[in-house]
Amino acid sequence: MRTFKLTLAYDGTNYAGWQSQPDRPTIQSTLEAVLRRVTGEQIRTVASGRTDAGVHALAQVASFQSETQLTTDVLCRAFNAYLPADIVVTGIEQATTGFHAIRAAIRKRYRYVITDGGSPNPFEHSHVWSYPTRLDAVAMGRAAKYLLGEHDFASFETSGSDRKTSIRNVLEVDVRRGPALFAFATANQVSEAIWIDIEADGFLYNMVRNIVGTLAEVGRGVQPESWVGEVLCACDRRKAGPTAPPQGLYLVRVDYSPNRSNS
Amino acid sequence: MRTFKLTLAYDGTNYAGWQSQPDRPTIQSTLEAVLRRVTGEQIRTVASGRTDAGVHALAQVASFQSETQLTTDVLCRAFNAYLPADIVVTGIEQATTGFHAIRAAIRKRYRYVITDGGSPNPFEHSHVWSYPTRLDAVAMGRAAKYLLGEHDFASFETSGSDRKTSIRNVLEVDVRRGPALFAFATANQVSEAIWIDIEADGFLYNMVRNIVGTLAEVGRGVQPESWVGEVLCACDRRKAGPTAPPQGLYLVRVDYSPNRSNS
Repeated sequence: MRTFKLTLAYDGTNYAGWQSQPDRPTIQSTLEAVLRRVTGEQIRTVASGRTDAGVHALAQVASFQSETQLTTDVLCRAFNAYLPADIVVTGIEQATTGFHAIRAAIRKRYRYVITDGGSPNPFEHSHVWSYPTRLDAVAMGRAAKYLLGEHDFASFETSGSDRKTSIRNVLEVDVRRGPALFAFATANQVSEAIWIDIEADGFLYNMVRNIVGTLAEVGRGVQPESWVGEVLCACDRRKAGPTAPPQGLYLVRVDYSPNRSNS
Repeated sequence: MRTFKLTLAYDGTNYAGWQSQPDRPTIQSTLEAVLRRVTGEQIRTVASGRTDAGVHALAQVASFQSETQLTTDVLCRAFNAYLPADIVVTGIEQATTGFHAIRAAIRKRYRYVITDGGSPNPFEHSHVWSYPTRLDAVAMGRAAKYLLGEHDFASFETSGSDRKTSIRNVLEVDVRRGPALFAFATANQVSEAIWIDIEADGFLYNMVRNIVGTLAEVGRGVQPESWVGEVLCACDRRKAGPTAPPQGLYLVRVDYSPNRSNS
């Protein structure tokens, strides 16, 4: 039995998230159907984390075990030949026995993209949060610095998860204006976007979307920057801003300690 | 009765093209339902040209007549409030009585986008032609110059249209490497694309897609550049290359003679 580490990019628009569900297309069920077709085995995959409906991934990591004797190159080509065009395997390697994409993860990075003001771009509606008014990205960036370091992020956790602790270590948070996601913009459309990158040793349920919804309250000027610090200290979800919509969120990267992921 | 000139950007992915069809969502039927809702009138729209299923527009122009007394600003906001996120009105103005978006058009510009080689980007699958191998864009650009000027383009017309003549004047054709359409690319994905712009006084059915499919034969090296000139002279659709898929095509601009479009 070999253990594999798979890296995937996907457009989550047409899926009900990562996790298999009855009667709804998901990334996991689509992937597992292809693994079965290629290997002939009923394979169960584990992802570094579940992405919700409409959330995207640039480099999701999944692990699985198989008895296949095919090389990783052949497997990669076969998977991509059968996967739909909105899911792409970008890497596959054999991992150490017992490698588990959730348990071995030491750090993850998410990106959230907002376009603010201007006419919404019809090519981006499934890929950004189109905010109706202009946001102060500089103020949002300063406010976000309150989140750096190890804190109890209970204020930014949507209930319904069974995690033991809501303490996480935010290693990096960066708010900046980057290019628009889609190369074409018409006269009334903004050709830039706000890119919010957050890297942490782990994330609570909806943590990035709750942080972004909170930062947007600062960006539109209804809360001061220091309010983000107050929300954090309150450890109370009701104190934070709304949950930003799913389609602006991208899982960018998952890091593993080197000695636990490669064979 | 007032005549209006409407400019629209739309993502054609989820539509069966511009023209109304029974039981299928189209741009025209979606737009006309919104016009009816806003004005209370049953309004018939005319577009500068029909886009096929999956084809996009950055600036399609449509004309219609209405008895509404609402200002163009109010109409624009109301249309966008009711239109789905993949169709956006980018401009509306009152036109001279009798302005007709097809008849008054004097020039149109289309763009076709190809990504060549590398792993396909899952975020671009509905918006580019993902060509499996690398193409020689410089050779394609030279070959495309054979199309400049007034010619009979019958070799590049898909049958089924009822146009009287297949003579058109190609005013500009430009093949270059531009940025990829979507800002995110993973390690194996190309971060650039081939942009093919064609401007003419009018286009035959599938003309751009047939030209692009023909240029791709030159780009992959199976035909010399001069072959495009031979195909053109043959006036025979069977001599040309295959029809490129719809999702890489964008209607970029429609020009009208100034004295016939504004009131």
